[in-house]
Amino acid sequence: MFAEAGVPAAVVLPRSTADVVAVMQTASRHGVPVVPRGGGSGLVGAANAVDGVITLVTTRMDAVLEVSATDRLAVVQPGVVTRALRDAVAGLGLYYPPDPASYDWCTLGGNLAMDSGGLCCVKYGVTSDHVLGLEVVLADGRVLRTGRRTVKGVAGYDLTRLFVGSEGTLGVITEATLSLRPAPATPVTLVASFASTAQTGRVVQRVVTEGLVPSMLEVMDRTCIRAVDDLMRSGLDRDAHALLMAQSDAGGEAAVAEIAALTRICTDEGADLVHSTDDAGEADLLLAARRMAWPALQRLGSGLLLDDVAVPRGRIADFMDGCQQVAVRAGLVVAVVGHAGDGNMHPTVVFDQTDADQRTRAHEAFDAILALGLELGGTITGEHGVGRIKTEWLERELGPVSMSVHRAIKDALDPQGLLNPGTMFRRAAVGDLPAVASAQA
Amino acid sequence: MFAEAGVPAAVVLPRSTADVVAVMQTASRHGVPVVPRGGGSGLVGAANAVDGVITLVTTRMDAVLEVSATDRLAVVQPGVVTRALRDAVAGLGLYYPPDPASYDWCTLGGNLAMDSGGLCCVKYGVTSDHVLGLEVVLADGRVLRTGRRTVKGVAGYDLTRLFVGSEGTLGVITEATLSLRPAPATPVTLVASFASTAQTGRVVQRVVTEGLVPSMLEVMDRTCIRAVDDLMRSGLDRDAHALLMAQSDAGGEAAVAEIAALTRICTDEGADLVHSTDDAGEADLLLAARRMAWPALQRLGSGLLLDDVAVPRGRIADFMDGCQQVAVRAGLVVAVVGHAGDGNMHPTVVFDQTDADQRTRAHEAFDAILALGLELGGTITGEHGVGRIKTEWLERELGPVSMSVHRAIKDALDPQGLLNPGTMFRRAAVGDLPAVASAQA
Repeated sequence: MFAEAGVPAAVVLPRSTADVVAVMQTASRHGVPVVPRGGGSGLVGAANAVDGVITLVTTRMDAVLEVSATDRLAVVQPGVVTRALRDAVAGLGLYYPPDPASYDWCTLGGNLAMDSGGLCCVKYGVTSDHVLGLEVVLADGRVLRTGRRTVKGVAGYDLTRLFVGSEGTLGVITEATLSLRPAPATPVTLVASFASTAQTGRVVQRVVTEGLVPSMLEVMDRTCIRAVDDLMRSGLDRDAHALLMAQSDAGGEAAVAEIAALTRICTDEGADLVHSTDDAGEADLLLAARRMAWPALQRLGSGLLLDDVAVPRGRIADFMDGCQQVAVRAGLVVAVVGHAGDGNMHPTVVFDQTDADQRTRAHEAFDAILALGLELGGTITGEHGVGRIKTEWLERELGPVSMSVHRAIKDALDPQGLLNPGTMFRRAAVGDLPAVASAQA
Repeated sequence: MFAEAGVPAAVVLPRSTADVVAVMQTASRHGVPVVPRGGGSGLVGAANAVDGVITLVTTRMDAVLEVSATDRLAVVQPGVVTRALRDAVAGLGLYYPPDPASYDWCTLGGNLAMDSGGLCCVKYGVTSDHVLGLEVVLADGRVLRTGRRTVKGVAGYDLTRLFVGSEGTLGVITEATLSLRPAPATPVTLVASFASTAQTGRVVQRVVTEGLVPSMLEVMDRTCIRAVDDLMRSGLDRDAHALLMAQSDAGGEAAVAEIAALTRICTDEGADLVHSTDDAGEADLLLAARRMAWPALQRLGSGLLLDDVAVPRGRIADFMDGCQQVAVRAGLVVAVVGHAGDGNMHPTVVFDQTDADQRTRAHEAFDAILALGLELGGTITGEHGVGRIKTEWLERELGPVSMSVHRAIKDALDPQGLLNPGTMFRRAAVGDLPAVASAQA
């Protein structure tokens, strides 16, 4: 979609909490808005500058301050790259699950601000499920500590969860205490192809109702399958309408049993092909198709609008079919890739950016997909956030009472409205900028 | 501890959200405070009346409105008894994990308000880990909906988590959408006894560092062991200084392997006795000792002060030993029972209520245990909440910045200060009541 991208008055790269305090004290004294920014991998423009702001980039605050195997936690600064934390704890047999697609370059601060997800969510939840506590610099420069080092604790309001996912509108996260898990077993991987999306929808439904908890359950539609095959020549079944990819990291016999149950369900529902493997190399090859979906789609058109709708798991097939109806009505291609296991789908509208008519139709299709998601009992954002591009849709999803509670909390914590103006809340037409296309990561 | 218990001006028992709206509209129009109350099983006085308030009891809003196997969720009214939801979903092979000790009579509304825990937390988390969305009546009578039916979603602030655990100070929860899990396998159970608490501390530490995730891991000290044995004549090892109880519900071979690993760790650390069983009846007998700990302790003294401290898991042995030092200094018995797996300990100070000197020393001991918890990096409440009895300790744990953020949020959502006065926040000396002892559930 379109996200404003202005020119900041200054870009600061703090190295410490004290630096951030100084920035916020100066900003609040002079009434200058501040846009916090991590690795810049976000998809909704939440870290884009607005003219005249201070952009506060946290990438130099990149220390892993502590890893405790005894308490199964890590204390990190916000600029640590997500992958770097994974690597830092792997030697101790520990595991930090959240794995956004950009985890090679996105930062934990950004993950926290947006409450990022990834492929692991179906079993392990999202970023907020792994946060024990935060240090946050408030709009006026005061330093707040939330949460604790213990796994349990109910002293006071859950401020940790309030700041996680608040998209930089309530404070600047300067430190986080993250819970870790034991490293999972090497997964067993399954791939299945189907002649219809309805079949994959039924498979997901049965996975849920039969009580399976795979560690990954992804789906790609025919457009994605063909785009990936065009790019990689990987011999995918180009006639399939949907490809399902699953993993179980339950370990040993349990994983084998879980994948066997999945195989049975896929076969029952008429899969054209089901293949599973416990060989890590072969699994990587199979999953490369999923990982390459976005690059492959980028070759299909000069413009891509990546959507991010989550629907109840029983409505996945309805949603995928609805997306194809949207595509037909718009006369455009809509490719669907998604985290089927948790109902978080990423339909992508493909169009020619140089064609004004296609641009209009693409945005109409993008909106129609959001409306479809809400109609099916879903949400306008499963994991990418609201940012600048979905503020009106947020109002539509939440309604006036919730929006007024949101504003009351925002006003209580940031009365001058300094933090990340235009994100989450619509701005009152200040310095309207020409819209700039920024559709990809 | 001591919790105020006043006389309400009125007690209302609404049957619907509309009834609650009417109560809150009337209350806000006339400036009358409202104390929400569920089953009344809370341990910190959070649902106690204050003179002149309206007590709003939700027990007649007791419908399970929906159970969806497809979306693995339930929609409930707040007055549903926790156990009743468990029973309602069991037939579908589903499971609602939170299991406070009072789950036969406490209500989900109270669980939500307090973010209750239980024995399951070590593997499955607390109440807030199972909430997808809420309906809340705000102080002014407006109806707010938070969250969603999808498992993933990041549209707006996490208001769901803000209301869960807010102890009735921000709104009245009138409906909740709760996520369910597949029913776990029948557990394998282990009991081990030790000659020192330090040994059990080391066992817990190794469980954490070796990556085991039992579905239960409880500890009892010698005072509890003897009290339970006196009550039940169950042949417990009266010379043991600590008894550890664990379960694995990983299923089949995985559960056997997990309990075998636990057995090895217990033996390594010098357990006097380790016994495990996959027989459900025998397991019930073994666990009866844990369930009877509180009734057994109630026979030891006319007064009991039940504490609720969570410490980092590496500090459990330090905490248990520290409690014994507190007991020696106070010249009283302090019995420790606890959810060792998540570091949430319940030391109980036993005293004679008719003895003024013992009462004083008991309260000093209670406070000394909270101070010890904070000193070890823990929290003053792992699962019981702040209520009326720990408001000063909340300030001590959170500090002035966090308290001012708490007050800003409270003022933003309840500007008249109508909801649950005296809970979580200290009251400005209004109608000081004589303190009433209410130390137990």
